[in-house]
Amino acid sequence: MEINISRVKRDIEKIAEFNATPGQGCTRFSYSPEDSKARNYLIEEINRLGLTTSIDGVGNIRARLEGSMKDAPAVLIGSHIDTVLHGGIFDGVLGVVGSLEVIRVFKENNIKNDIPIELIIFVEEEGSNFGSTMAGSKVLTGKYGIDEIKSIKNSMGLSMYEVAKEVGFDPDSSQKYLIKTGDIMAMIELHIEQSVVLESEKKPIGIVEAIAGIKWFEIEIRGVPNHAGATPMVMRNDALVGASEVITTINSKTRTAYPSTVATVGKIICHPNVPNVIPGKINFTLDVRDTNPEGIRIILNEVEKKLNEISKKFNLSTSMKLLGESNPIILSNELVNLIEETAIEKGLPYKKMNSGAGHDACLFGGITNVGMIFVPSIGGRSHVPEELTSYEDIKAGCELLLNVVYKLTSSLTKKT
Amino acid sequence: MEINISRVKRDIEKIAEFNATPGQGCTRFSYSPEDSKARNYLIEEINRLGLTTSIDGVGNIRARLEGSMKDAPAVLIGSHIDTVLHGGIFDGVLGVVGSLEVIRVFKENNIKNDIPIELIIFVEEEGSNFGSTMAGSKVLTGKYGIDEIKSIKNSMGLSMYEVAKEVGFDPDSSQKYLIKTGDIMAMIELHIEQSVVLESEKKPIGIVEAIAGIKWFEIEIRGVPNHAGATPMVMRNDALVGASEVITTINSKTRTAYPSTVATVGKIICHPNVPNVIPGKINFTLDVRDTNPEGIRIILNEVEKKLNEISKKFNLSTSMKLLGESNPIILSNELVNLIEETAIEKGLPYKKMNSGAGHDACLFGGITNVGMIFVPSIGGRSHVPEELTSYEDIKAGCELLLNVVYKLTSSLTKKT
Repeated sequence: MEINISRVKRDIEKIAEFNATPGQGCTRFSYSPEDSKARNYLIEEINRLGLTTSIDGVGNIRARLEGSMKDAPAVLIGSHIDTVLHGGIFDGVLGVVGSLEVIRVFKENNIKNDIPIELIIFVEEEGSNFGSTMAGSKVLTGKYGIDEIKSIKNSMGLSMYEVAKEVGFDPDSSQKYLIKTGDIMAMIELHIEQSVVLESEKKPIGIVEAIAGIKWFEIEIRGVPNHAGATPMVMRNDALVGASEVITTINSKTRTAYPSTVATVGKIICHPNVPNVIPGKINFTLDVRDTNPEGIRIILNEVEKKLNEISKKFNLSTSMKLLGESNPIILSNELVNLIEETAIEKGLPYKKMNSGAGHDACLFGGITNVGMIFVPSIGGRSHVPEELTSYEDIKAGCELLLNVVYKLTSSLTKKT
Repeated sequence: MEINISRVKRDIEKIAEFNATPGQGCTRFSYSPEDSKARNYLIEEINRLGLTTSIDGVGNIRARLEGSMKDAPAVLIGSHIDTVLHGGIFDGVLGVVGSLEVIRVFKENNIKNDIPIELIIFVEEEGSNFGSTMAGSKVLTGKYGIDEIKSIKNSMGLSMYEVAKEVGFDPDSSQKYLIKTGDIMAMIELHIEQSVVLESEKKPIGIVEAIAGIKWFEIEIRGVPNHAGATPMVMRNDALVGASEVITTINSKTRTAYPSTVATVGKIICHPNVPNVIPGKINFTLDVRDTNPEGIRIILNEVEKKLNEISKKFNLSTSMKLLGESNPIILSNELVNLIEETAIEKGLPYKKMNSGAGHDACLFGGITNVGMIFVPSIGGRSHVPEELTSYEDIKAGCELLLNVVYKLTSSLTKKT
């Protein structure tokens, strides 16, 4: 029972050809012509294994390998195939083709599974199209209803509801495809790490124990735009000087919070943004994440304190608006142990770790046991054309997934 | 002998009507239709006084009130009439119409001046059109030749040379209009302060002693763009965190340099500027000014030290490129004393001060004695639609200019 890495490589490279921006990374938005070709390729591969597909109201694809226990809750494996603009070819796709390969190995080795195995291919994980991440898995798990998918819109102003309908899906039928508690036995997602932790520790496998909660804010700092030459330092209300002190504080306080705490100011806009005018207004985003909610609380307290301090120090006015949030997810301890035990058996070096990124698997937190397996990203690069994982590490990740799924589904006595 | 403030007000308001962006501040670029109307209005007013105008190769207007000493070096008074995009109605215009009013008062009071008085109206001081400030006075004083005005271009890609030619000037003739050492006896510019110093000290008059030297830089900080959730704090190379420490240092070190030192980061660009990606590259400008070159040196040393420090601390690479510079100008001590003595005689509260902004008068530093008179800017606002100076203060400034010009030109025995 072994992964055929050349099939996995062929699938990844084939799907990479369905790309709206050849030569400038991989761009495959949900419901685009490229997405449609990638779906057709995968459906054909699924059919070749004798499985049939079921497609929900927004295009999430499910394919079931029945087991000896008919109609039993299945083990769900898979990920997404949409990408960001000018992204890479591994993010999402790896989990889909790795899971497809697991089913292929079951079929070609004639392994008799007791529990059914379901391959899942989510739509619209990246949010590149309609601005809302994990929209496909949100629909499938009932977090998004018709109202939500009517309200999120693409750059043309068309809603996810409208576009899904336009390409032939039936979003009004979403309700009947919902996955609810008791429907599935476990959800396991294989994914690239998208960071530098595994590479720097030279481990091919990450076993995810928790997925960070996130809070997103927009912070505005208002000062007075004035002449850069004519205004003495003591008479300035420089919004950028205030913002810089806040950003410096966010960085230093996050480094001394918990090892799991991360905070990022990724976007900053300066007004009027002219070399010889003192900045009158700065808007910047704050993305703060932690598996431990206390880490997020510490940072927000520090930011609040610092905003007060700079308001007084430089006579600025400040405001802070919550844009979005998600709670931390603790993955199944049982699955973590099973994945760890299997990695040890297979001689695969691993690291138990947290995920700072959100994934489709997060949506299954309240519904079933969730597990995630990471493989290293070279240089930590992701969401860029340079995104890369070695096929040696991909093989390790797929093998681990295969053996975990085997233990979960094929021999009831082996289950922990 | 008295200023007629209603004439000054009428001139300012009339010229404000020649505006490309009514309702959104005043926009009057050199060589635009609005500029042409303002020039015609002023030339008509000059002709009404019996003076004729001489226009150089790029459009600088000069008008001479002859004195009893024919062909003697004149006292030059005036400023510019071009504005920034969406600017105010006082910057530049005040010095032009204030100087015009001085000549009107001489004529209507039949004052016999010994020394000639010349009104000057510069083109293209703001650099809004061709990106180079004080281009008109640079041509008139020989700092810009044909090559330079062929190389500076507007947003349509047309050079100052081409556009000046297109609207009917003869830029090739510039050489014969040059002002050289010995041609004029003094240059005095009346201007709004563009800052908050006079307002905060409740003084209607600023007597400028020195104009700051300037150095402009572009600083680039390169890190690694990475996933905001997946990258632990200790593994980040965050260009914005590095930039924020530099900006914070620039501010704190400038406050402790000299009272005359100012430094501003007015423009900042973040790449890729996405909320959930660690900034990979930051470009920002540094504008540092001082009448004391030692102040500029202190700041540049500190910036260099800090760039080295953040390179090591966050593993970033940095570079710093000089974009432009001008040397500090010490104004004529003789003129400062004369203006001060006159302000005292007239009972006008004044402050001896430096100018952080550059002005056309700077270009005359090596050629003749230069003096500048400032009047307060309400709230320090300038280069914005809200730019405002009270007509009471304007009257004080014009009166002071009138009396200084009178002393310099009309009674040889009264000169200090």
